[in-house]
Amino acid sequence: MKNNDSISIAVIKRLPRYYRYLTDLAAHGIDKVSSTELSRRMGLTASQIRQDLNCFGDFGRKGYGYNVESLRAEIGAIFGIGNNYSAIMIGAGNLGHALANHFDFKKRGVHLAGIFDIRREIVGESISGLTIKHMDQVEAFCKENKPDIAILTVPKTEIRPTVARLTACGVNAFWNFAGLDLHLEFPNAQVENVHMGDSLMSLCYKIANKKDI
Amino acid sequence: MKNNDSISIAVIKRLPRYYRYLTDLAAHGIDKVSSTELSRRMGLTASQIRQDLNCFGDFGRKGYGYNVESLRAEIGAIFGIGNNYSAIMIGAGNLGHALANHFDFKKRGVHLAGIFDIRREIVGESISGLTIKHMDQVEAFCKENKPDIAILTVPKTEIRPTVARLTACGVNAFWNFAGLDLHLEFPNAQVENVHMGDSLMSLCYKIANKKDI
Repeated sequence: MKNNDSISIAVIKRLPRYYRYLTDLAAHGIDKVSSTELSRRMGLTASQIRQDLNCFGDFGRKGYGYNVESLRAEIGAIFGIGNNYSAIMIGAGNLGHALANHFDFKKRGVHLAGIFDIRREIVGESISGLTIKHMDQVEAFCKENKPDIAILTVPKTEIRPTVARLTACGVNAFWNFAGLDLHLEFPNAQVENVHMGDSLMSLCYKIANKKDI
Repeated sequence: MKNNDSISIAVIKRLPRYYRYLTDLAAHGIDKVSSTELSRRMGLTASQIRQDLNCFGDFGRKGYGYNVESLRAEIGAIFGIGNNYSAIMIGAGNLGHALANHFDFKKRGVHLAGIFDIRREIVGESISGLTIKHMDQVEAFCKENKPDIAILTVPKTEIRPTVARLTACGVNAFWNFAGLDLHLEFPNAQVENVHMGDSLMSLCYKIANKKDI
């Protein structure tokens, strides 16, 4: 594999999608795949796929195709899967429950280590094997467990003090579901903002304009 | 405004973000904004903003800036806000509850008209003022109300039969939370797939590589 720095950002952004398809293939016991077959499954052209995976030269041999497990491991390594990142979730509301119960953290190499909320009436309840803790315990938990990521499923109005508090605990990466651009206010943090509203607007665009984007 | 066709897809993809910021400005009673001010708020360069909004010539006058409400309305029109799209939600689990209770559909011009589930034990319960109906009623509901969009918050295993059933009801646009690429299996439908896993992988990339993408 070439150095990560030689892979363009556009390709990096597409790699999680390859990772998904390769994970599916591996789960079905398929050990090699051609660019033609990947293109059929992913709805991309074979030449686009060959171009995207060009930097993984060793795994794509003419007439053989790609070794599924090796390519998957290689992409996973670029994304730090295997680094065993641990995460805490702040906010045990409906979205917190949905993620904790149904989202496959393990598939992305992330371990959900704790769930916190400010509502005393739900503290002690269990979600997906984890007991909801009160936010008062977050400092002690972070000191002991040093989580890499905080998943923010708190209301928008709670975001700023929550992030300031977590930053003081040494947490510096945020998966933010509050619908605001957190990276602008905390430029030193690593942030992924999930903007569901933008996604619904994209769908409305497709309906209104009868074309894909 | 130029014809929508003259706006590049890259710009179209960024417009929901502009729409968010313009909505915030309007909510704060701000009626005009310069590209410099927008750039400060959005974390883009002023020249990128001027280039992006180039096609909205009438609203960006030198020395005046952009008329917030006009530009917001113009972008909204491109995305069909004002077309009063109606949506039904299939799946009243945690994610369905989270969206119905906390997601601002109105802001995106979408009206949530019905919520359906196959679990008889939750039929009749109320979420956000809507009574959960049994899926048995979906055909009659669609015939009468002709919803534009189905929001899919059902488990992945239920997706294919659910979409086939809704397609037969005349629903042709899907906001899909099941984590698979629905557009490949239903090429005639308008689909927006939400891939939360890809988003978490992007965050892990930023942590592992200590750089933004």
